[in-house]
Amino acid sequence: MDERTVRRLLADVRRGEVSVDRAVKRLKALPYEGIGGFAAVDHHRTLRVGMPEVVFAEGKTAAQVAAIARRLAARGPLLVTRLSPEKAGAVRRAVRGATWDPVSRTLRKGRMSIPARGPVGVCCAGTSDIPVCEEAAATLDVMGVEVIRIYDVGVAGLHRLLSRREDLEACVALVVAAGMEGALPSVVGGLVGKPVVGVPTSVGYGASLNGIAALLGMLNSCAPNVTSVNIDNGFGAGFVAGLVARG
Amino acid sequence: MDERTVRRLLADVRRGEVSVDRAVKRLKALPYEGIGGFAAVDHHRTLRVGMPEVVFAEGKTAAQVAAIARRLAARGPLLVTRLSPEKAGAVRRAVRGATWDPVSRTLRKGRMSIPARGPVGVCCAGTSDIPVCEEAAATLDVMGVEVIRIYDVGVAGLHRLLSRREDLEACVALVVAAGMEGALPSVVGGLVGKPVVGVPTSVGYGASLNGIAALLGMLNSCAPNVTSVNIDNGFGAGFVAGLVARG
Amino acid sequence: MDERTVRRLLADVRRGEVSVDRAVKRLKALPYEGIGGFAAVDHHRTLRVGMPEVVFAEGKTAAQVAAIARRLAARGPLLVTRLSPEKAGAVRRAVRGATWDPVSRTLRKGRMSIPARGPVGVCCAGTSDIPVCEEAAATLDVMGVEVIRIYDVGVAGLHRLLSRREDLEACVALVVAAGMEGALPSVVGGLVGKPVVGVPTSVGYGASLNGIAALLGMLNSCAPNVTSVNIDNGFGAGFVAGLVARG
Amino acid sequence: MDERTVRRLLADVRRGEVSVDRAVKRLKALPYEGIGGFAAVDHHRTLRVGMPEVVFAEGKTAAQVAAIARRLAARGPLLVTRLSPEKAGAVRRAVRGATWDPVSRTLRKGRMSIPARGPVGVCCAGTSDIPVCEEAAATLDVMGVEVIRIYDVGVAGLHRLLSRREDLEACVALVVAAGMEGALPSVVGGLVGKPVVGVPTSVGYGASLNGIAALLGMLNSCAPNVTSVNIDNGFGAGFVAGLVARG
Amino acid sequence: MDERTVRRLLADVRRGEVSVDRAVKRLKALPYEGIGGFAAVDHHRTLRVGMPEVVFAEGKTAAQVAAIARRLAARGPLLVTRLSPEKAGAVRRAVRGATWDPVSRTLRKGRMSIPARGPVGVCCAGTSDIPVCEEAAATLDVMGVEVIRIYDVGVAGLHRLLSRREDLEACVALVVAAGMEGALPSVVGGLVGKPVVGVPTSVGYGASLNGIAALLGMLNSCAPNVTSVNIDNGFGAGFVAGLVARG
Amino acid sequence: MDERTVRRLLADVRRGEVSVDRAVKRLKALPYEGIGGFAAVDHHRTLRVGMPEVVFAEGKTAAQVAAIARRLAARGPLLVTRLSPEKAGAVRRAVRGATWDPVSRTLRKGRMSIPARGPVGVCCAGTSDIPVCEEAAATLDVMGVEVIRIYDVGVAGLHRLLSRREDLEACVALVVAAGMEGALPSVVGGLVGKPVVGVPTSVGYGASLNGIAALLGMLNSCAPNVTSVNIDNGFGAGFVAGLVARG
Amino acid sequence: MDERTVRRLLADVRRGEVSVDRAVKRLKALPYEGIGGFAAVDHHRTLRVGMPEVVFAEGKTAAQVAAIARRLAARGPLLVTRLSPEKAGAVRRAVRGATWDPVSRTLRKGRMSIPARGPVGVCCAGTSDIPVCEEAAATLDVMGVEVIRIYDVGVAGLHRLLSRREDLEACVALVVAAGMEGALPSVVGGLVGKPVVGVPTSVGYGASLNGIAALLGMLNSCAPNVTSVNIDNGFGAGFVAGLVARG
Amino acid sequence: MDERTVRRLLADVRRGEVSVDRAVKRLKALPYEGIGGFAAVDHHRTLRVGMPEVVFAEGKTAAQVAAIARRLAARGPLLVTRLSPEKAGAVRRAVRGATWDPVSRTLRKGRMSIPARGPVGVCCAGTSDIPVCEEAAATLDVMGVEVIRIYDVGVAGLHRLLSRREDLEACVALVVAAGMEGALPSVVGGLVGKPVVGVPTSVGYGASLNGIAALLGMLNSCAPNVTSVNIDNGFGAGFVAGLVARG
Repeated sequence: MDERTVRRLLADVRRGEVSVDRAVKRLKALPYEGIGGFAAVDHHRTLRVGMPEVVFAEGKTAAQVAAIARRLAARGPLLVTRLSPEKAGAVRRAVRGATWDPVSRTLRKGRMSIPARGPVGVCCAGTSDIPVCEEAAATLDVMGVEVIRIYDVGVAGLHRLLSRREDLEACVALVVAAGMEGALPSVVGGLVGKPVVGVPTSVGYGASLNGIAALLGMLNSCAPNVTSVNIDNGFGAGFVAGLVARG
Repeated sequence: MDERTVRRLLADVRRGEVSVDRAVKRLKALPYEGIGGFAAVDHHRTLRVGMPEVVFAEGKTAAQVAAIARRLAARGPLLVTRLSPEKAGAVRRAVRGATWDPVSRTLRKGRMSIPARGPVGVCCAGTSDIPVCEEAAATLDVMGVEVIRIYDVGVAGLHRLLSRREDLEACVALVVAAGMEGALPSVVGGLVGKPVVGVPTSVGYGASLNGIAALLGMLNSCAPNVTSVNIDNGFGAGFVAGLVARG
Repeated sequence: MDERTVRRLLADVRRGEVSVDRAVKRLKALPYEGIGGFAAVDHHRTLRVGMPEVVFAEGKTAAQVAAIARRLAARGPLLVTRLSPEKAGAVRRAVRGATWDPVSRTLRKGRMSIPARGPVGVCCAGTSDIPVCEEAAATLDVMGVEVIRIYDVGVAGLHRLLSRREDLEACVALVVAAGMEGALPSVVGGLVGKPVVGVPTSVGYGASLNGIAALLGMLNSCAPNVTSVNIDNGFGAGFVAGLVARG
Repeated sequence: MDERTVRRLLADVRRGEVSVDRAVKRLKALPYEGIGGFAAVDHHRTLRVGMPEVVFAEGKTAAQVAAIARRLAARGPLLVTRLSPEKAGAVRRAVRGATWDPVSRTLRKGRMSIPARGPVGVCCAGTSDIPVCEEAAATLDVMGVEVIRIYDVGVAGLHRLLSRREDLEACVALVVAAGMEGALPSVVGGLVGKPVVGVPTSVGYGASLNGIAALLGMLNSCAPNVTSVNIDNGFGAGFVAGLVARG
Repeated sequence: MDERTVRRLLADVRRGEVSVDRAVKRLKALPYEGIGGFAAVDHHRTLRVGMPEVVFAEGKTAAQVAAIARRLAARGPLLVTRLSPEKAGAVRRAVRGATWDPVSRTLRKGRMSIPARGPVGVCCAGTSDIPVCEEAAATLDVMGVEVIRIYDVGVAGLHRLLSRREDLEACVALVVAAGMEGALPSVVGGLVGKPVVGVPTSVGYGASLNGIAALLGMLNSCAPNVTSVNIDNGFGAGFVAGLVARG
Repeated sequence: MDERTVRRLLADVRRGEVSVDRAVKRLKALPYEGIGGFAAVDHHRTLRVGMPEVVFAEGKTAAQVAAIARRLAARGPLLVTRLSPEKAGAVRRAVRGATWDPVSRTLRKGRMSIPARGPVGVCCAGTSDIPVCEEAAATLDVMGVEVIRIYDVGVAGLHRLLSRREDLEACVALVVAAGMEGALPSVVGGLVGKPVVGVPTSVGYGASLNGIAALLGMLNSCAPNVTSVNIDNGFGAGFVAGLVARG
Repeated sequence: MDERTVRRLLADVRRGEVSVDRAVKRLKALPYEGIGGFAAVDHHRTLRVGMPEVVFAEGKTAAQVAAIARRLAARGPLLVTRLSPEKAGAVRRAVRGATWDPVSRTLRKGRMSIPARGPVGVCCAGTSDIPVCEEAAATLDVMGVEVIRIYDVGVAGLHRLLSRREDLEACVALVVAAGMEGALPSVVGGLVGKPVVGVPTSVGYGASLNGIAALLGMLNSCAPNVTSVNIDNGFGAGFVAGLVARG
Repeated sequence: MDERTVRRLLADVRRGEVSVDRAVKRLKALPYEGIGGFAAVDHHRTLRVGMPEVVFAEGKTAAQVAAIARRLAARGPLLVTRLSPEKAGAVRRAVRGATWDPVSRTLRKGRMSIPARGPVGVCCAGTSDIPVCEEAAATLDVMGVEVIRIYDVGVAGLHRLLSRREDLEACVALVVAAGMEGALPSVVGGLVGKPVVGVPTSVGYGASLNGIAALLGMLNSCAPNVTSVNIDNGFGAGFVAGLVARG
């Protein structure tokens, strides 16, 4: 049932061809989908306002990703995550003007233009966690949020972290990735009173349990301003931090 | 927004006091709750047709349970589960005509009158799993489904199980509870081609991991007609089997 | 020992050629298999009535699957599950008239002709869970049960799910596959009062623990009409739903 | 080394009694604690600006909590969490003007006066999760952030949730508590494009694993705006949401 | 249906009062239990020959245990395990001549008289594991198997273990209980070429995970003659070792 | 220090060249290894009497296995386990007269000649568990123990198992392999009063957790004559059963 | 067999009453215990040199602890750990001069007098971890090693930790206890190049999994000088650090 | 803010151009990084004194490792761990004079010259654990600590271990690697009163859980002188043992 149907019903009511009782009864019988279509509760638009169109490329073929990406890119800024080098070529050809970044393995086109209240910091201890950080940074970039990268700050070398305090404090929110014991979000959270989104990474071996150890570390953080997302979920962390930055 | 509001709007349309355009616009603006109340998509009624009103008493005070139970008992058949002896008295006083059963720890009043296609069998190997079975049986009873109890049939004493084959085959569905290795549903499922709802119980010790071992046993059943519910969830198993029996 | 042997023994007793004592002794000595054959407890026939012949191809060579499949196809409808493209060719050549489907990775031939009480709905949120759903659908198809596919309905986009309520309510049972948090069966179970068989899928990463998170979600469902099968077990879910549909 | 020491050193430098070289050398030798005290890197103040003084009472004696609470209450707004009825009396007597709430088990005194950008919604499906929600609400209250309670909205009864959409959209952030399968944050996150802080609760039994199932559900949320805190950590969730609300 | 029924049927056949056809039909209709009773497949007798009647008292009331124990004691040697001091009195009064042992928490009466091929050694490192060992010893005692106790032999004090080698070698099988890291069965298994039944005990704390660590230690034993039973299952270990001793 | 040293010392004592005091002192100073070598406690011989020389080939190169196998084959019967087809050729060339079996992936040469008290049964439900069973059978074969294979007996098709009861009862011990829910050892253990060594196999998927589910099933067996070895450890199970058969 | 036996044998050899051959044979037959007693390989003395006599009181009765403690106190310094207030009285009365400390729940008497190379630091973040730290400190005290307590240093408040750097660097080894995310040992390990023994504590809730999260944090430490002991094992950590301090 | 800034400020104070009050204020405002740079708390130097420069090569490209290694080799002794044969060539070419060892997969150049108090023993049961041991040995070698290899000593063959007691006792610390049940550190720890660093290895299958079983074994060691590092972490174990040896 679409708007036309409702419009016709109301016209019938107006003309006296349908009684109020009968109209009430018919409206009551509206299946949800009709209501969905008619009453315009397209909540997805709500979300879309604050987020780019996103494709999770893992487990999809290059052709599938290319098709979806092309369609979405027509509607607004586009972000493709977990796009391997093998598939990147095909997708780039499908979406003119898109750029692919080998570190974050993201493909992007366009940028949201919603004003943000300030930059988001993206932090980690080093080389291995950078891809996850860059996925967060790419997400923030497409959301139109400025990113400050703070990439060489580990808990076993505090002076480097302390030397970046000014940067940390300039941010409205922080994404902090960490593998192994996952303690960096706690330490950062203790330094600055901003929301810290921890991203456990699957970096480590043995008892790191592919990131579970780091995840538990973040969930048990002694700093109360730390929350956590799934292992290696740079996109999710960046997205939440971007929403915070938007206000 | 309730029916009255819609009714008034339609009357206004009829009288020509509100244009069709404007009425469409106002209907579009209906918040979901209005729609919920008005458009009568009370899906809960759908469920309620097939189920009694149920209260999970664990973690609630006797007074809380009594208050909820009294209110629900006014609307139809009532089932209170996990009702300890300590709380049972107060609840019985609150709901006239209700009976409490110490084995299943359920309190019941009334019975649905929807016809069932056949009885449901409730099976276990012995003493310790009987309370869970009786919770399932109590649920089926309130749903108006006949129950066949098959209670002394374990996988380490097959002859007892085999001697009840005729009973098993008379059922349209089976609830099979088992602790320890949780193999009984597989064996029963191999004997009769009916849906078997396995209920792992927390009976056991050590590596039974409070029912996890039995749960894994049921999830990995080599009999394809076995599904599983949560540990000790006699109510859920009985309810699903009752829905199957209803057809 | 078959019926003939018993018959001959009884004839001997009748003719007085074998004493009652001796006959009792010989009957006592019947091994179980004799009893099995004689006393006609061929429970396998019971099961077979309601199910096609099924081969789980994973872990078997193409030659092994082909040999088994040919033999079974001679007895009735055939279903081969988890049949990879590499092996499919050999098996198809072995079983004339069989068709192989690349999405569900099943090979089928024939259909049961037992009447069903109604269709079974097969639901999931999207692309990644479709192969598991199609395995369930293939199973239902061979069982002779009609399938309604409801494939683009996720918990983070409720309007699509709500728009399919009429379809959901037309079904006598539902198979609902979900990876990640595995919440879809709970939401579907809350909408319709029918048995819902949840199939956790191994879709996800990190803390999805290869489907364990989704499985736990289903086992802890707040909707009491949800049961669960093993991770990715589309066949089992379809089979149980088919049994329910059969009545 | 405190400010006086530095001041005296500088005075000496000024008077020419200590050379610049020697002063540099002495400043270099400052142990960190001196620096800590002197150089005013009181990062705690940073945090404190946005948060009340908080005491976690579990595992401390009434006397210990009372002593700490009195000292902290002298410095600003006070929040004591996990304060059981047994200890509450002693602590209330120690802190004049404090009020204790039996549902959230918090004791509060005072309120921050930092302006917030909007209210925070606190949601759950019902009775059992309310204490955790109230802990979050108490935290937000002491932070000076308005709270909108949305307490009867479960995933197995979507109409109640949908009827509160307007409230959900009025919030700048949401705290969503859920036990059992933990799906509510995903569903809420799909409805509104705001940061959602999920709080898994230990409500449930068997395979709920004391909240682990709910936690995994939130970490694997298909809604990208969901992050998670530790099980039953209402305070942490409220605090982070409060920081977001502050901007 | 018992032997008498069959006998009467055969006599009727003999007398020509019942036709062969009819007799075949009646025999076919024998329910399994009849077959069980008649065709002498009383496999339980098989087991019972080698084992005492056993009652697991945990989770049963004193009255229940007393009733079962009295009935079983009439049939042969009796063993009640996990019988707490609180319940022991009532059970002892019910079974004349039974003795209760506070360390193993077993109640015993009588002894099997099947000859064994040799003694069974029961070993552990010390005080905390002795109750489990004594449960095994009590089981062996009722089975009529001689027990050699070797109780002060830990892996961190090898000389005591080595000094008991002669005793170890005199045994036909060994029960070895160990908590904590559970390494004793491996070390014992490396010393003597006999079947070693490891019993992990729940002794330990923290990462002992209530005996799981010890269990894993035994399952991963580098000595190939080690098998394992459930945590704290002294009865099971004693029973299996007793079967080995019996030959 | 070897025998010669002791002998020379004693001769010196005898000749009066070394005093008793001094000899005592020197003997006291004997390092353990001397004692090991001298005092003839070659416990390894003890073990070796009952077992063939065994090589675990996994994780070793073909050359390493060949070298070890050649050396061991010179001392007695040889068994190489987990020997892949790729390495088998090189090892066969190194050990003349050895035969390699592709199903059990074992290479064997020779046979112990210690008399056994009876055959060992090796059981499983079908195709996938046969390699593990054959590893057990190969081990028993080299130990000189007769094997009865019972390979098509699953818990979801009891009649096949019951028809093999006579074979089961002929055995002095049973090796029972099972994947998925791992219930077969419990059922077999309930049928015959002999030691049953369960071998969980890694056959299954999803919640089978690579054999952990089957392992838990066996550890929680309701049949008290079941013990368990590590997942897929056919060798260990065969070896223990062989020791039992030896007596 | 003790020294006297050997001495007599040698005397017999000397007197020519026993031949060398026969003496060799008799010595060969020496059971290990004889060798153990005679050959003086009392390795326990080795350990005892560096450690006090220790009793783990948990799971023992007051009477048992008192008896053991009295016996051990006669031989040297005594340490009783995990001694609850209820049992402390009886044990103190049994061992004159012993003192019991309610925080560490240890009872001590005497002190080793082996010189140490320097003090050991014992660190934690606060109140809840102090009992575990004090158990380590008590152990070090009885070992005669000086302890530096550093008790208010958490990862979410780095300035307090940094202000104690001089103390940290004065130590030859560090015991660092931490619950929740267990990150303190990593941070301390990054500050000073000394062996750090991490003690995870069971402090925390929910996803702390009773200390498992902290344990995993320490095992995955990014500081390579961190090792770990069992959860709450203050004694073990103190003991190892004491051995390091001893040199 | 660097030394020059402070120097200039002090000069201004001296010249009277800046008041003491203002200088205090400016010093207070010093960001941490300034302090870090100025106050010369280069704690990394502390660590570096006792350790070589180390690169963890896993997860880095050959080019990345080569670049880092060349830079570090210029500053002191170099150790590269987890360097696969594929990458080794490129790195060797980058660092003149470095040698690569295929067993430990380490590349080394140079040696620290800090005197050690004694050798460190490196122990395991055999072939499979040797690579981990050699990684520890390589680490110790670069630290300038002598290594005693004790490589054929398993818990199921104690005589070999006992024959090496003298070597064990000569060491100031021990690294003990073990897979499977991980019992070797306990046995070694019971023999010698020195710090034992256990390294669980991922050697094993099935219930070894990739080294978790061995790890749990070490954490639950009944020998109090055992600590543990992460699975397969030979470098960490060697490094800690080296620190102990250094004193």
